[in-house]
Amino acid sequence: MLRTHNCGELTIKNIDKEVTLCGWVQRTRELGGMTFVDLRDRYGITQLVFNMDTNAGLCEQARQLGREYVISVKGTVTERSNKNAKMSTGDIEITVNSFEILNEAKLPPFTIEDNTDGGDELRMKYRYLDLRRNPVRNNLELRHQLAMETRNYLSKLKFIEVETPYLIRSTPEGARDFVVPSRMNPGEFYALPQSPQQYKQLLMVAGYDRYFQIVRCFRDEDLRADRQPEFTQIDCEMSFITQEDILNTFEGLTKQLFKSIKGIRMDKFTRISYADAMKYYGSDKPDIRFDMRFVELKSIEADAASQGSLFHLTNGKDFKLFDEAEIVVGINAKGCSEYTRKQLDELTDFVKKPQIGAGGLIYVRYNPDGTLKSSVDKFYTADDIKLWAEKFNAEPGDLILILAGKTEKTQKALNELRLEMGSRLGLRTNDTFAPLWVIDFPLFEWDEETNRFYAKHHPFTSPKPEDIPMLDTNPIDVRANAYDLVINGVEIGGGSIRIFNKDLQKKMFTMLGFSDEEAQAQFGFLMNAFEFGAPPHGGIAFGFDRLCSMFGGSESIKDFIAFPKNNSGRDIMSDSPSTISKEQLKELSLKVNVK
Amino acid sequence: MLRTHNCGELTIKNIDKEVTLCGWVQRTRELGGMTFVDLRDRYGITQLVFNMDTNAGLCEQARQLGREYVISVKGTVTERSNKNAKMSTGDIEITVNSFEILNEAKLPPFTIEDNTDGGDELRMKYRYLDLRRNPVRNNLELRHQLAMETRNYLSKLKFIEVETPYLIRSTPEGARDFVVPSRMNPGEFYALPQSPQQYKQLLMVAGYDRYFQIVRCFRDEDLRADRQPEFTQIDCEMSFITQEDILNTFEGLTKQLFKSIKGIRMDKFTRISYADAMKYYGSDKPDIRFDMRFVELKSIEADAASQGSLFHLTNGKDFKLFDEAEIVVGINAKGCSEYTRKQLDELTDFVKKPQIGAGGLIYVRYNPDGTLKSSVDKFYTADDIKLWAEKFNAEPGDLILILAGKTEKTQKALNELRLEMGSRLGLRTNDTFAPLWVIDFPLFEWDEETNRFYAKHHPFTSPKPEDIPMLDTNPIDVRANAYDLVINGVEIGGGSIRIFNKDLQKKMFTMLGFSDEEAQAQFGFLMNAFEFGAPPHGGIAFGFDRLCSMFGGSESIKDFIAFPKNNSGRDIMSDSPSTISKEQLKELSLKVNVK
Repeated sequence: MLRTHNCGELTIKNIDKEVTLCGWVQRTRELGGMTFVDLRDRYGITQLVFNMDTNAGLCEQARQLGREYVISVKGTVTERSNKNAKMSTGDIEITVNSFEILNEAKLPPFTIEDNTDGGDELRMKYRYLDLRRNPVRNNLELRHQLAMETRNYLSKLKFIEVETPYLIRSTPEGARDFVVPSRMNPGEFYALPQSPQQYKQLLMVAGYDRYFQIVRCFRDEDLRADRQPEFTQIDCEMSFITQEDILNTFEGLTKQLFKSIKGIRMDKFTRISYADAMKYYGSDKPDIRFDMRFVELKSIEADAASQGSLFHLTNGKDFKLFDEAEIVVGINAKGCSEYTRKQLDELTDFVKKPQIGAGGLIYVRYNPDGTLKSSVDKFYTADDIKLWAEKFNAEPGDLILILAGKTEKTQKALNELRLEMGSRLGLRTNDTFAPLWVIDFPLFEWDEETNRFYAKHHPFTSPKPEDIPMLDTNPIDVRANAYDLVINGVEIGGGSIRIFNKDLQKKMFTMLGFSDEEAQAQFGFLMNAFEFGAPPHGGIAFGFDRLCSMFGGSESIKDFIAFPKNNSGRDIMSDSPSTISKEQLKELSLKVNVK
Repeated sequence: MLRTHNCGELTIKNIDKEVTLCGWVQRTRELGGMTFVDLRDRYGITQLVFNMDTNAGLCEQARQLGREYVISVKGTVTERSNKNAKMSTGDIEITVNSFEILNEAKLPPFTIEDNTDGGDELRMKYRYLDLRRNPVRNNLELRHQLAMETRNYLSKLKFIEVETPYLIRSTPEGARDFVVPSRMNPGEFYALPQSPQQYKQLLMVAGYDRYFQIVRCFRDEDLRADRQPEFTQIDCEMSFITQEDILNTFEGLTKQLFKSIKGIRMDKFTRISYADAMKYYGSDKPDIRFDMRFVELKSIEADAASQGSLFHLTNGKDFKLFDEAEIVVGINAKGCSEYTRKQLDELTDFVKKPQIGAGGLIYVRYNPDGTLKSSVDKFYTADDIKLWAEKFNAEPGDLILILAGKTEKTQKALNELRLEMGSRLGLRTNDTFAPLWVIDFPLFEWDEETNRFYAKHHPFTSPKPEDIPMLDTNPIDVRANAYDLVINGVEIGGGSIRIFNKDLQKKMFTMLGFSDEEAQAQFGFLMNAFEFGAPPHGGIAFGFDRLCSMFGGSESIKDFIAFPKNNSGRDIMSDSPSTISKEQLKELSLKVNVK
């Protein structure tokens, strides 16, 4: 080793020790006749001291050191007069006897500090410098810890990690594949896996019983913020289990990660059905760090009995918006009755934004003096509004915010408003974690454009046994044995119990509009495998990049990926993708056809 | 869980317990009024028993069970009368009360037994059935264990695993890249990494100090037996270290793997220079499970003094072959003096095979009675031959085998003969492990065809500091700080200390025939990174598939990969690669151009 110690480990216990350290020059300062150099490596910073009085030549050389120079230093551990309690090495400094410049450095284009002056584009171009900054390095160390904990936890539960292939068969179903031309098989292509779904099911057919893999997946989608063309999954599958076993096993994993990485002990996770998630939060990934559940004043979807009682709250008062609405639904913003006109206008503007799309916002102030004031006072009496306030369990000081319109759209808009209010009220803090299982997803979703059913999860997802009879009568109501793990409103993972019965699988394909030939062409090798004794099985996959960013208290996954791509799928550091040579194209039997 | 226990855990301690097991029907046997079913899962086999006397109906149903049916069984753990000491569950059986067929199975196309009747092609087509067989499952469980041990060992040494990208920039140097067309950047391509070499060096520039990754790599080469287009590496890099630190760290890892996985404690690994490996074994990956070192009777490469003494052993006796040879070199096959004429002819045929290419084989028998008999008695006297025998340290009973010709070719041929003799003499057993570091590789190799130097390892490999002056005078003699780990004649890993000095790197590129522009185009982002403070660093990569097969005592890596491809890069199970649709090609701005 070129060093005796790293830059993060020397303390008062090492006083008078002769040491050799290596690292990068973080900064140099001159103070009277002294020169101080902060020497940095992955493990910390150690202060070097040079004295003009005792060794002018060496001190002079030290003053020439530029930022980010790589040096090797020999010296003696000395107690500091001005201790720094914030640093692990803050009690000591190194009185340097000699040093060597191992490598010079050009001036970095941005500061290597926790809060850098570098913009996103510049940081990505010089990612190797950005990676030197503590916050980014901490993120990647966290990622390593999470991967290690996950592997050790699952391995102890007899899961085995099996590496599945990256060069696989392209299937047109689902998102768009990245493809890889085969030189040895001209005109043919491999695909990069969107997930190892079929392979993990094959491993269950092969009797592997408990499989996991921390695995890269690829999707050639138009990138949104926080989407990467390559991303990492914790991918799992189990045999001879029920949904309950999957939920418990991966709740166990999640709890273990929170306990060991963040020191947080979690209670049993809340569960909610998809139907209730939509009804009470307008979202299939509710943020339950705060309550603020939806309250319906009217819903045409409610059962007949309650409809009667609901309708009288809103209808027949000549307020056309409510009369014609499928749903009238709101939230109670506790303690917000004194919101100003300006604040209410902001909220109205918020819900009217095109991406949210509400027509307007109705409010009811429950004034601290017990009086009620609403934006629809001209249609409803004080007694009418009083009844609303009771439905909302509102108290003096509260502010009720109401939207009305088509059910699905209104619920979604109110979800956005609820999240906005949660943020405004400081109820969505990064250091609180509220996990939630969303279960009983619908099996199908109907696509208006193509006029057909799509599998909400994927075509191998099993319907709930008790709902199977509805496949023929009202398929849209059939619930699946499918589940998502949501933390703080972010979907961390999802999975399902799979169909392992051939006839049921065939029925599914028929309902999804696949002919036998199409099903065979796309899923043939998996369906063939199922003929040789498939066990009951199911699984789950966690988005690992997102899990890391959740643990790191950030909303951007990019900060948790060593070398991410930008929103057009480019790596600007290496300037990739790039053109390839004519010879390469020829070998691959390809022609580029760009207009 | 659909079971209370698995099929490998019930013992005499569980007698009288009511249990539910799930698994596959391995076989059914009828014996008098009894029917026995072996139920199999990943964990073992448990015997089920049905009695015609006590429950004829159930017994009758059991007799209908086909091989590989998936069933769920309820019953009572009972002590066996005929115990089977070879099975963990051999003391008990399950007296079945009821069972359910979870899934039927078609008759498998080959037997699911340790020694199957399925050929390679059939096993690959139905890989999910092949994976059910114990030997294959054991291989993959071994692989999982090796990966876990590696990760935990390196993690404890403060290595962090960083996931590097799979969609990277294509570089023409080295082997052929697999490329991935970019839809969003028409006419441009990503490449799949042949190794994360540049990224791990960037991580060192970024100060990560100790990096590892168990990572998939891709090479579009014409496949030989035991080459896969995608393969897995244990990839590592360290900063502020010398070659000695790398060797010790990864010797430590290897020892730990042997200790924990195979219970074998290993002594300090032998080291040999590349020059000595060629001189004594004719190979840069000697199998040192057995000695049988080369002995030179003549070598034009030997120093002048010893040449004089060597030449008189072979030259001037009118034996043209030896007179004209650059080298006369042989091995002593202990105890083989009584090889028959036929056996000697076989060995002669062996060395004359085109892929070995020797012109012939000279032998000397040291008969048990002390007399010497050689195939060149007509040129050499008994005294001449006696001198040879002394050089070989031969004793009565030994057989000396000698080749002559051009140095390199003859050494390589003799290496093959040595390995052949090792095998014939049973000196190359699968349960002996002889690790060896081969060090001091040459920095360059000369390519006759293109008339230029190539980097023996890669262009970032550092020359030995003491050899740097020779870069200008006799570059072919410059040794590199490069090393391979060889076990039992198989290259398990290799690496080098990297150049981190800009001027030296520039000189290397010049010597390799790169213009500045070419170097910049291919390695620009790494070279730019080096300008911002690169630390001294170096690394190593282990071939993980090969490491697994070594531990599993097999020579084929395919048996240690869950879903391997065949020698034309096809996965015959999923029939991949395959054609893709016109729409897909159009989106990618590509045309297929197959004649």
